[in-house]
Amino acid sequence: MFSDVKACIFDVFGSVADWRGSVSRDLAGFAKEKGIEGVDWLVFAVEWRKLYQPAMEEVRSGRRSWEILDTLHRESLYKLLDRFGVRGLSGADIEHMNKAWHRLDPWPDAVQGLTMLKRRVAIAPCSNGNVALMVNMAKRAGLPWDCILGAETARAYKPMPRCYLSACEMLGLQPHEVMMCAAHNNDLAHAKKQGLRTAFFPRPTEHGPGQTTDLAADPAAVDLPAADIIDLARELGC
Amino acid sequence: MFSDVKACIFDVFGSVADWRGSVSRDLAGFAKEKGIEGVDWLVFAVEWRKLYQPAMEEVRSGRRSWEILDTLHRESLYKLLDRFGVRGLSGADIEHMNKAWHRLDPWPDAVQGLTMLKRRVAIAPCSNGNVALMVNMAKRAGLPWDCILGAETARAYKPMPRCYLSACEMLGLQPHEVMMCAAHNNDLAHAKKQGLRTAFFPRPTEHGPGQTTDLAADPAAVDLPAADIIDLARELGC
Repeated sequence: MFSDVKACIFDVFGSVADWRGSVSRDLAGFAKEKGIEGVDWLVFAVEWRKLYQPAMEEVRSGRRSWEILDTLHRESLYKLLDRFGVRGLSGADIEHMNKAWHRLDPWPDAVQGLTMLKRRVAIAPCSNGNVALMVNMAKRAGLPWDCILGAETARAYKPMPRCYLSACEMLGLQPHEVMMCAAHNNDLAHAKKQGLRTAFFPRPTEHGPGQTTDLAADPAAVDLPAADIIDLARELGC
Repeated sequence: MFSDVKACIFDVFGSVADWRGSVSRDLAGFAKEKGIEGVDWLVFAVEWRKLYQPAMEEVRSGRRSWEILDTLHRESLYKLLDRFGVRGLSGADIEHMNKAWHRLDPWPDAVQGLTMLKRRVAIAPCSNGNVALMVNMAKRAGLPWDCILGAETARAYKPMPRCYLSACEMLGLQPHEVMMCAAHNNDLAHAKKQGLRTAFFPRPTEHGPGQTTDLAADPAAVDLPAADIIDLARELGC
């Protein structure tokens, strides 16, 4: 049924990697090293993520010119350090903390599932993360991407059509030959509207134990529901 | 000496892959299948390559707007098929021939050398080939790139400064942390002018048995002369 799919492109934050667990663990470890006390780093990570969409919306709306996600993350980090009363860090410390997003751990099925998919199709992130972020994460985690696509190569943040369509163009493929794969129905709905195929796999603890959203595929947005990336690879005959 | 180098970016046509042998073999095989006779496909490949710089120069000069290399290659192919008197091919046939550039064989040391380098540094092409061309070549040949950079992601053909500098930016690195690696002194001279480190390894048969250019490193352009990509990896301590 999906034999004409020649590439799978992936949402990364939440779908391939566990941002909530990884960022909070990374910052907590660094804070301990630096003797910073009194901050709940899980709360901090969640607050950081909350500033993600509004920061990108400034760029999407055209109110500010193109900036990569590392820059938006850094601006949000400065705000949060101030709000949480964390003082006395050096520029290098803050840069290290900002790169917590380059050090995300993948979900347990991600490396094996991507490795299986890579045998038959091209695999790439189609993430709002910038190229360096994706390259550093992939090298640390062993994610075997064929190339890095997404917001920076398109100069447009998801869910703008340009982000999905630029990935297809750069792969030299028609949208129906490319499958957008994510744990977020909303991302998939936007990709489907541009003519891409879509695959959903749930990440029921992305937002913590009480998660109520994206627990199942939305049939209106999803062509192929899967259990995880290994299951997705099997469904595609890899 | 080069311990601060965090990425190696590569010229591909001629440096990592043997375009002359590969394109001529590929076209000769296809011509046999199609019953096309009377063409010396080695001459054809060399003539195709001769149209490469003039086609890019139209874009570099601003006389025409951005076009990927697949498009420039296709235009040159139509001209050459006409000049060599090859008639009666379908659009799909011509598309297949154009993608001979996606099916280049790497030089014998390339896969092993890149695999060694990848342990310590990020590796990417910085080629005038477009992303799809580089992805397809890498998947067929087993080139283990961390990401695909170059003319299409920079929207500028080498040797324009933007092509080298965009690769550094997308890797999140300063130019002196990036080493441009090639078998062409001219490419390296342009990269060095932008602040990148440079490594040369000769490909003495790229242009055939009587080659007279690029047989040795030009000391003015080259920081690190090497025998091949495996030797380069050893020199960088990989």
